[in-house]
Amino acid sequence: MNIIDGNVTSPIGFKAAGNAVGIKKNKSGENTGPFESKKDMAVIVSEKPCNAAGCFTTNVVKAAPVLWDMKAVANKITGIVANSGNANACTGQQGLKDTADTADKLASLINVKAENVLVCSTGVIGVNLPMEVILKGVESTYSLIGSSYEKGLSAAEAIMTTDTRSKTAAVTVEIGGKTVTIGGMAKGSGMINPNMATMLCFITTDCAISKPMLDKALKACVKDSFNMICVDGDMSTNDTVLCIANGMAENTEITEENSDFEVFVKALYHITRKLAIDCADDGEGATKLIEANVKGAADEEEARKIALSVVSSSLLKAAIFGEDANWGRVLCAMGYSGADFDPMAVTIEFRSGKGTIRLMDKGTPVVFDEEKAADILSEHNIFIDMFLSEGKGAATAWGCDLTYDYVRINGDYRS
Amino acid sequence: MNIIDGNVTSPIGFKAAGNAVGIKKNKSGENTGPFESKKDMAVIVSEKPCNAAGCFTTNVVKAAPVLWDMKAVANKITGIVANSGNANACTGQQGLKDTADTADKLASLINVKAENVLVCSTGVIGVNLPMEVILKGVESTYSLIGSSYEKGLSAAEAIMTTDTRSKTAAVTVEIGGKTVTIGGMAKGSGMINPNMATMLCFITTDCAISKPMLDKALKACVKDSFNMICVDGDMSTNDTVLCIANGMAENTEITEENSDFEVFVKALYHITRKLAIDCADDGEGATKLIEANVKGAADEEEARKIALSVVSSSLLKAAIFGEDANWGRVLCAMGYSGADFDPMAVTIEFRSGKGTIRLMDKGTPVVFDEEKAADILSEHNIFIDMFLSEGKGAATAWGCDLTYDYVRINGDYRS
Repeated sequence: MNIIDGNVTSPIGFKAAGNAVGIKKNKSGENTGPFESKKDMAVIVSEKPCNAAGCFTTNVVKAAPVLWDMKAVANKITGIVANSGNANACTGQQGLKDTADTADKLASLINVKAENVLVCSTGVIGVNLPMEVILKGVESTYSLIGSSYEKGLSAAEAIMTTDTRSKTAAVTVEIGGKTVTIGGMAKGSGMINPNMATMLCFITTDCAISKPMLDKALKACVKDSFNMICVDGDMSTNDTVLCIANGMAENTEITEENSDFEVFVKALYHITRKLAIDCADDGEGATKLIEANVKGAADEEEARKIALSVVSSSLLKAAIFGEDANWGRVLCAMGYSGADFDPMAVTIEFRSGKGTIRLMDKGTPVVFDEEKAADILSEHNIFIDMFLSEGKGAATAWGCDLTYDYVRINGDYRS
Repeated sequence: MNIIDGNVTSPIGFKAAGNAVGIKKNKSGENTGPFESKKDMAVIVSEKPCNAAGCFTTNVVKAAPVLWDMKAVANKITGIVANSGNANACTGQQGLKDTADTADKLASLINVKAENVLVCSTGVIGVNLPMEVILKGVESTYSLIGSSYEKGLSAAEAIMTTDTRSKTAAVTVEIGGKTVTIGGMAKGSGMINPNMATMLCFITTDCAISKPMLDKALKACVKDSFNMICVDGDMSTNDTVLCIANGMAENTEITEENSDFEVFVKALYHITRKLAIDCADDGEGATKLIEANVKGAADEEEARKIALSVVSSSLLKAAIFGEDANWGRVLCAMGYSGADFDPMAVTIEFRSGKGTIRLMDKGTPVVFDEEKAADILSEHNIFIDMFLSEGKGAATAWGCDLTYDYVRINGDYRS
C-alpha cells in the first residue's frame, strides 16, 4: 500500500469541485461566523456509474438527505452533491422535497435520474434550505468540476463547517496486477460521537468491486474508525459515510472475501482511520488528540465500550486540556462504560512522545512524579493505555480535549 | 406538608457538626483550590439506632466507602461520618481498610460497632486518605455535635467540594396524629449524572418506618429526583443517598403501603427533588438551570430517556449558556436518546418567566421571533417542553448549562 498525497479526484474517472454559492451567509448577507471556509458546495461526479455503499447516523431524527441516501445507495451512483452551512435537518416535509429537488438538479446536468445522485448537507439544524441559492449553486459548482488535485482539495474545503482545516487522504494498492486508487475527504468537528456524528465522509475508488462486497468492506472499516471517535457525545442527524466505486482500474471485480478483498479492506481502512482521527483531532476547540487503548477486556465489544467511554468523559477531557494527570477519571469512566471488569486488576498508563508514566498498577495507585506527568501531558498527542485481566478484547478510540473554545463555538453557533 | 427552614438536625434526636480538620490542603499545606468551604468533615449521630436505606452509584468502580455502606445499611445505624477533599476512590485495598478504620473510630466514640456506622467520602480520586488527619478529625468533629439549626448547616457546608453553596431541606407532616420531620443535606456539582454522580445526600427523619418500607420509599423518590439530573454525563464512583429513621416521632410504625406511607413518600420526595434540583442548579460553572419536560412518549421509561438525553447534550447546554434558541439540538438529542418516536409529530417549546415560544410544531420548524426567544432565554430558569404523540409517558429531568467555568474548574481540579 502506498500512501499518496491525494483526495477524491485521485482515482481514475472522478471529477470534483468546491464552490462558494452563498449558503454560508448571515442575515445581513455577509459571510461570517465560525466558518473557516466560505465555500459551501461540493460536487463529485464519476465518468461511469458506481456501486455505492453508505453508513448513516443511528439517530431516530434523520436529516432529509440521510433518508434520501439510505434509499439511493441501492442504485448505481454517478454524482454526489454536498452543501455546508445548512444541514436540512428537522425541516419537515419541505426538507424532503428540497433534497429531491437538489438531486434532480445535478441529475439533469449529468443525464441520469435523481435516484442516481446522492445528497449530503451539514451545518445549522432546523432551517429550510435556500433553494434558489442551492439550485443555482449546483449549476455553477458543476461547471467548475475537474480531475486535478486542486479540484479535489477545493471540494474538501467546501464541506467544512467549524472545521479548522480540510481533511483528505488517498492510497494506491495493487489488486490483480492493476493499480487501484482510493481517495477520500471528510468534515467533522462538533457533534462527533460513536455511531457517527455531524461527520460527512466521501470516498471514491476506481476499484472494481461488487455492491455487496463494497457494503461489507465499508461497514467493517467504519466500525473501527468513525464509530470509535468522540468529540462531545452528541450524535448528529446527518452523519454519513459514502463510498462509490466505478471499476475503472479494470481489476477483476471483487465478488467474494478473497485476498483481493483483504487488500482492498486494508487500504480502505487506512482512509477511514486517517480521516476519523483527523476529525477527532480537529474537534471543536480541541488542542489535543487523545487515543485510548484498551487491552485485556472480556471481548472486543467490551473493549470498545471502555475505550469510547474514556474519550467521551467531559471530566477527563477537561483534565487533559489542563494537562492534569487525573487518572482517577479514567478509571471512573471505565467503570460507567457498561463493561464488566475487576477494578482491582486494572493498570493505567499515560503516554506521549515525551515518555510513559504508570498511574495505577493492578488496582493500586502509584505514587508518581508530577513533573514527569506534566511533561508527558504537554504534548499534542496523548495516549491513555488501559490493561485489564478479563480476556483478550482490545480496542482503540480517539477523542480530543474539552476547552474554552468548545464552549465559545457552541454557545452561539447560529449567529 | 409544611416546608420548613431546616436540615438534618431538624428531626427529633439527631445531632450533627461540620468541621475543618485539614483534609482540604494543598501540597504546601494551605487551604486552596476550588473549595468554597474549608470545612471537610461532617458527623451525624442519632440518639437511638435507626433503620437505614441507601441508593448507590451503578459505576462498576465503586469507592471504598460505597462498598462499606452497601453492606452496612442492612444494620441498625447510629452514626454517619462524611469527609470532603478526598473521595477514597480507586485507592486499592488500603482504601477499604481506611473506610473500616474511620467507621471504627466514630463507633468507639458512640459506643456501637463499626458496622453501625456509615461512611461517605467525596473529592479527589486516586489518593489514599490521610488517616492520621481523618481519625483525629472524627474525634474533634464529634466533640462539636449539637442539635441546633446551625450545627446542621455546618455539617452541610462540610461536605461541599466544588459546590458554591450548601444544600439543605426540611419538611414536617402529620402521620397518625404525630408530627414527623424529615431533614436533608446534599452536595453535588461535578460528575452529576443519571443513576447518581459525585453526589452525596443524607436524609434524617424521626418517622417510625420499617426497614423494607424505608427502602421502598427512598428508591421511589430517588428514581424521579437524583436519577433525573445531569451536569456533565460523568457518573461518579462515590454517589450515595442515605436515609436514616430513628422512630422518635412515635407515630405508629409504617410497615405497609398504607396512607401513612403515601404521606411519608410525598414528603420524602419533596426533600429529594429539592436537593436534586439544587445540585443541578449548582452544577460546576453553571449559570442556568434547565428543566426538560417530556409529554406524550410511549411510556414513562421512554420519556425519562428523552428528558435525560436533552439535559445531557453538551451542544444544547452550550447553546443555553449562549442564550441561543438552537432548538434543533433538542430534537437531535431526543433522537439519539434510545427512545423511539415519530420526529414528524414532535412539538418543542422554550419557556421561562418571560414567556413561552414554540419552535417546532408537529415536525415543522416555526419561524419565530429571535428577540422574543433571546428575552426568554435571558432568564435563569429555562424550561424545555417537548410534546410527542406516542402515548402517555411523561418525565422531567434537570440539568445546567455548559460554560467556560466548567472547563476552568475541571481543567485543573487536583492542584
